[in-house]
Amino acid sequence: MTRRIADLLRHGQPTETVTIKGWVRTKREQKEFSFVEVNDGSSMAGLQTVINQDMPDYAATIKRLSTGASVEVSGTLVESPAKGQRIELKADTVTVYGEADAETYPLQKKRHSFEFLRDIGHLRGRTNTLGAVFRVRNAVATAIHQFFQERGFLWVHTPIISASDCEGAGEMFTVTGFDLSKVPLTDDKQVDFSRDFFGKHAYLTVSGQLEAEIMAMAFSNVYTFGPTFRAENSNTSRHLAEFWMVEPEMAFCDLDGDMELAEAFLKYVFQFVMETCPEDMEFFNQRIDDSILATADNIINNEFARVTYTDAIALLEKSSKPFEYPVEWGLDLQSEHERYLAEDHFKKPTIITDYPAKIKAFYMRMNDDGNTVRAMDIVAPKIGEIIGGSQREERLDVLEQRITAQGLDLADYWWYLDLRRYGTVPHAGFGLGFERLVQFMTGMGNIRDVIPFPRAPQEVEF
Amino acid sequence: MTRRIADLLRHGQPTETVTIKGWVRTKREQKEFSFVEVNDGSSMAGLQTVINQDMPDYAATIKRLSTGASVEVSGTLVESPAKGQRIELKADTVTVYGEADAETYPLQKKRHSFEFLRDIGHLRGRTNTLGAVFRVRNAVATAIHQFFQERGFLWVHTPIISASDCEGAGEMFTVTGFDLSKVPLTDDKQVDFSRDFFGKHAYLTVSGQLEAEIMAMAFSNVYTFGPTFRAENSNTSRHLAEFWMVEPEMAFCDLDGDMELAEAFLKYVFQFVMETCPEDMEFFNQRIDDSILATADNIINNEFARVTYTDAIALLEKSSKPFEYPVEWGLDLQSEHERYLAEDHFKKPTIITDYPAKIKAFYMRMNDDGNTVRAMDIVAPKIGEIIGGSQREERLDVLEQRITAQGLDLADYWWYLDLRRYGTVPHAGFGLGFERLVQFMTGMGNIRDVIPFPRAPQEVEF
Repeated sequence: MTRRIADLLRHGQPTETVTIKGWVRTKREQKEFSFVEVNDGSSMAGLQTVINQDMPDYAATIKRLSTGASVEVSGTLVESPAKGQRIELKADTVTVYGEADAETYPLQKKRHSFEFLRDIGHLRGRTNTLGAVFRVRNAVATAIHQFFQERGFLWVHTPIISASDCEGAGEMFTVTGFDLSKVPLTDDKQVDFSRDFFGKHAYLTVSGQLEAEIMAMAFSNVYTFGPTFRAENSNTSRHLAEFWMVEPEMAFCDLDGDMELAEAFLKYVFQFVMETCPEDMEFFNQRIDDSILATADNIINNEFARVTYTDAIALLEKSSKPFEYPVEWGLDLQSEHERYLAEDHFKKPTIITDYPAKIKAFYMRMNDDGNTVRAMDIVAPKIGEIIGGSQREERLDVLEQRITAQGLDLADYWWYLDLRRYGTVPHAGFGLGFERLVQFMTGMGNIRDVIPFPRAPQEVEF
Repeated sequence: MTRRIADLLRHGQPTETVTIKGWVRTKREQKEFSFVEVNDGSSMAGLQTVINQDMPDYAATIKRLSTGASVEVSGTLVESPAKGQRIELKADTVTVYGEADAETYPLQKKRHSFEFLRDIGHLRGRTNTLGAVFRVRNAVATAIHQFFQERGFLWVHTPIISASDCEGAGEMFTVTGFDLSKVPLTDDKQVDFSRDFFGKHAYLTVSGQLEAEIMAMAFSNVYTFGPTFRAENSNTSRHLAEFWMVEPEMAFCDLDGDMELAEAFLKYVFQFVMETCPEDMEFFNQRIDDSILATADNIINNEFARVTYTDAIALLEKSSKPFEYPVEWGLDLQSEHERYLAEDHFKKPTIITDYPAKIKAFYMRMNDDGNTVRAMDIVAPKIGEIIGGSQREERLDVLEQRITAQGLDLADYWWYLDLRRYGTVPHAGFGLGFERLVQFMTGMGNIRDVIPFPRAPQEVEF
């Protein structure tokens, strides 16, 4: 029976007869036998196979086993004399499924730049680093579902195509069934969206939060985990046009409950990945960023600090650190400010709460001071902001005032307001960018290297 | 501490002091006390609370507790004298969070049509049927992840925005950053997509299969579970413009392995839902479709039948059943044919294999007869087709011929062909429409009632 290599490396015993299937990573030919390392994607390390020259067609077979070739090897596990590996596979039979011409196969045994690997996105999962990234990514995703399902949250699928713009902000992509060479116009030269597929202007969603609130008002605790989009022309190492977001929403919950959930969530996810992908995390710490294990440890083992925005401003004003951006009550905190608080002052993950209303979204609950809202951002050392959340405004009259004050149209929010009209409850939630979490956890420098097929300005291959 | 009602109904013991939070479903006022049923979305049944007139502000509080009001009740669990419920909650304190004006609240205690409920999609999750649907939907989704994760498959996120059309078929939505009132044209009056956000014509994906194949060629076993799209103008009870799909892909796997996985998968998911949502499934069987429990049982407890397309045609030709559509080798099977095979002939789930090449997609593996491909469809009694899959063509030369024969451009498939050029392996996978599965499992008549916020022609509210 075919065994996965990760399983054999952990549990395989000498004298066991096994079959493995995978791709050749390296080959070392010696006089009487050859060493061929085979990887099947289940772990960073491959299994060393030893092929003896007694094997029929030895020379022809070895010739075909270049890097990238696909192969099936059956044989017996034996203790390995080599250091760094417990066992190896003494091959009885070797079947080559497909070769990989060494002259043209782009993944040769040398270090490739991540930029180059992005151009061969259909092959980069076969490298050590990207292999580790996508295993960790899967572990993070699994941890997310497990965390919420264990706590009785329903996974709700909020719509991808939307006619509303959740936050009244964010640049959005248009989704259309029109032939763009002949878009129908009305008499006054406006686009006639009534003739489009959906009968109105449709967009790709920027957040599932408002719809998640709908579901929380029926099921109490829910979460979204799905793709969201930004049409921002940002060509940076931290922006994607298409990325996955996680957005829990809880009825009968205030900001304190929201902060508790967010802290428990981050600890759970980091712990889960440390336990399920220890070799991959070790690799990132050695090769990519030697602070990631310390960062994980800091998140798992510290109670998060909590500070109000107002107190944070006072701390920043008192600090002797020269900041590039001004510090002043009413201005948003910049990354340098957040990092000072988490890295230099508190030295652990820090939750900043109660921001000025005017720099936050309309749906956040107004405090009694009439000036600040029950918002929170979590910033972590070496990472910066990783979670943003709030208690939502559940009072109909206050919410209507805030929507109007922001120049938005109440009619567009009829159903959102209905939630406050019929059985309204205190509720809260947060949002987390999935790729940013994977990026921070692995230390990868560019967010395009933690999603299999990145979408960004001018980038839509594969 | 707040407890979920599902938990109390199952495990709550008389004399326990508890707090619940939820929404009023029904109220029955009697002389000395009132019965108020509270539901928090965790289960079909709510918890009966008993409010005694001794309570301060009794009359005013009861008045506010109309259907839809949100409430917190603390008290003591007691054995219930009423039939059909084991326990009830003797209230000590009742807090009303939000009222729901009985004059205007749309969900009164009567049967509403599903069409009407779709118009109030922001409230319909609070009804018995839609509540059950979304709990089952969550259970199906959880079962899917658990099934694949237990077997070492990686969840891979294939792109939503794509520049390629997987199957060379299917009507696609355009994704654009253009202002549609001024789409730039080239000198020869074509849309100048080079000036669009992605620099080329971008679409919403119709399938993640080709990208899943990329990932399987590095990690062996992977699955997608994400949204896919069709811009078809189909206003039927079985079509959505936006729906979720599950697509496993396995390297070193042929069609036999694919069929084994698919059968194990369906049994697992049905079993999981029967175990985690028994009350909801019972409800569907009683109120929506009295065959769904038998269907689930049929899937869980039968070894699926297997028949080739060629033999299936022979069976259909021999049958005395009058079919509306012609039966002839080379024509696709219609729903009536598939149902005859599964319901009348085999009387259990049936896998039909080896279809004529000319009615299937280019990527399916050509059989030695040069006429049929290693495709499979799974059809189930009362359900019809539920899964479609195939072994993929792994031979570079054959694949190139098939792409060219279908009038497609080899250059568009450069990376897909590279997978056959470098370390190609036999591989296979299948696709399953998530909403169709939920629809069949629950017996719901319209697919728009098994997704929280359906998208269809002229339908993009919420």
